[in-house]
Amino acid sequence: MSYKLYYFDARGLNEPLRMIFALGGVEYEDVRIPLGDIPPPPTIPAEIKEKCTWGQVPMLEFDGRKICQSLAMQRYFAKKFNLVGSDDWEAAQIDEYVDSSKDFLQVWVPPLTEKDPAKREELIKETKAKTVDKYLKTFDKIISANGGKRLVGKNLSWADLWLAHVLNNLELVGGVKLAEGFPALKALCDTVFATPEIKAWVEKRPKSKF
Amino acid sequence: MSYKLYYFDARGLNEPLRMIFALGGVEYEDVRIPLGDIPPPPTIPAEIKEKCTWGQVPMLEFDGRKICQSLAMQRYFAKKFNLVGSDDWEAAQIDEYVDSSKDFLQVWVPPLTEKDPAKREELIKETKAKTVDKYLKTFDKIISANGGKRLVGKNLSWADLWLAHVLNNLELVGGVKLAEGFPALKALCDTVFATPEIKAWVEKRPKSKF
Repeated sequence: MSYKLYYFDARGLNEPLRMIFALGGVEYEDVRIPLGDIPPPPTIPAEIKEKCTWGQVPMLEFDGRKICQSLAMQRYFAKKFNLVGSDDWEAAQIDEYVDSSKDFLQVWVPPLTEKDPAKREELIKETKAKTVDKYLKTFDKIISANGGKRLVGKNLSWADLWLAHVLNNLELVGGVKLAEGFPALKALCDTVFATPEIKAWVEKRPKSKF
Repeated sequence: MSYKLYYFDARGLNEPLRMIFALGGVEYEDVRIPLGDIPPPPTIPAEIKEKCTWGQVPMLEFDGRKICQSLAMQRYFAKKFNLVGSDDWEAAQIDEYVDSSKDFLQVWVPPLTEKDPAKREELIKETKAKTVDKYLKTFDKIISANGGKRLVGKNLSWADLWLAHVLNNLELVGGVKLAEGFPALKALCDTVFATPEIKAWVEKRPKSKF
């Protein structure tokens, strides 16, 4: 089967799919649209845009099928590769933590895309203050209560991939190291990035800006 | 089992859960926090806020458990009441259409919460222009290709509930009738709101502003 993924030349909202594909051993064509100097939002080439159901990426083609919306495609393959917990209640908690990880990532978009260095520093400071209690302490507590290195249950889930990706991305894009001082968060990130398939992917993945 | 749902006195992002509960015959305490004169964002009473994992609603308590994030709780109960399609691929398409319905709803928040009447009219006009092709034509085509009254497969899904809710809500909040001229969209809405359990819920539900 041949897989063709259309997304920006970025980790962004869809790096978790690439991590899931790494875990599942899926080979795919990784079509990367240049992000350019955002903001303003990047331009999707017309010949790709018209193939995308909602005029936006990510879009994945495989087996004569097409799927859009990052979380929808990620959940589909997370299910296939046993990353959705052991029952419906675990799957629901995983969904909650994925959605909150995505919220957490999106709160950081304005500071990290701000071009004025002074404004950027100010925004980073404000966003740190807003996210420490709401996301870091909360996630740290959840991981601790679950044994110290995973969000839900006894196995790696796509929520772990999401949270590790967000923390790693903030460090790569903005030099913002948020997991320091939160031992369970750090243990989760270490667990995810020490997984051999993820480690191999991270070593070879393109060094994109976002 | 006793269920307690905390959300705003609004249909908003979580009316689909109330529709799912109506279909599943779930009795619950519907705790409605006054929305006030938004914007600015509404205030959540401290005693509720501190119980919410992310400091925000919706939050649902049942059976000694707690779940937050609207789509996570909706998907959990949609699964329970057979509203997630007949296989994983249908579930993924349903997830895609739920996410796009939510995007569609959120594009309409600025015009419908604008207080200046002239600006509001202008924003409504702009948003109509932006959403007709992207959402209305696309959803209409998807429904038509699937037999004319549902988004996915042969049975009602929570994506149908979401899309019907968004179109209904735009009409209730802003008098914006978008389904006119799109026969398949109209047929989907008619099917959803003619479902006896949904019809009964809509007749008795509080007449909130949003």
